[in-house]
Amino acid sequence: MERLNTTPDKLAFNADGLIPAIVQDAQDGTVLMMAWMNREALEKTLETRIMHYWSRSRGKLWRKGETSGHEQEVVELTADCDQDTLLARVRQTGVACHTGRRSCFFNTLKLDGNAG
Amino acid sequence: MERLNTTPDKLAFNADGLIPAIVQDAQDGTVLMMAWMNREALEKTLETRIMHYWSRSRGKLWRKGETSGHEQEVVELTADCDQDTLLARVRQTGVACHTGRRSCFFNTLKLDGNAG
Repeated sequence: MERLNTTPDKLAFNADGLIPAIVQDAQDGTVLMMAWMNREALEKTLETRIMHYWSRSRGKLWRKGETSGHEQEVVELTADCDQDTLLARVRQTGVACHTGRRSCFFNTLKLDGNAG
Repeated sequence: MERLNTTPDKLAFNADGLIPAIVQDAQDGTVLMMAWMNREALEKTLETRIMHYWSRSRGKLWRKGETSGHEQEVVELTADCDQDTLLARVRQTGVACHTGRRSCFFNTLKLDGNAG
């Protein structure tokens, strides 16, 4: 798919100064987690190629893996059409989820009906 | 990966009553878009197996594809460890992005440094 270029100045951070970042395994496409970045976390991520986030619960900058060692090396970082959501394709060391699972998405919602 | 079950009652909608939904192509793993659901959009999605969202710009419930025909049939819907983000694996009819691209994530951010 055709790619365009963008810069941090063009991104639409929300009223709290944050933008959501979807994190995907660059090798097999598994969606691993979603977390939030502020401008500083984004700039640290671009500089170091290691994913940094803003922890809303702790109110601080957070380098993923700083305590667990489970860091994420960025392979590609893109913004969506509205420039208000990021997608990071990463090389994940260890597991992404603090529960020890590879991906944070493990809670299934039941679909109604007969299909599927 | 092991799966647990959850229900809409257990989800953590934000202060605006919304929860983000990441949308992934069920066949090849491409991340197509992210949009927001309120409780009603989630329930319509579970009932019909067609993705519904809350349009923050238009302030209304929105069935993806209602004008474009580019609807999304849900194959699997999961919540993350904090139950505040959804991941929908879908069968996408046509393209996901209103720009005509298959995925909304086409704006590349430049990474610094020599690696990669």
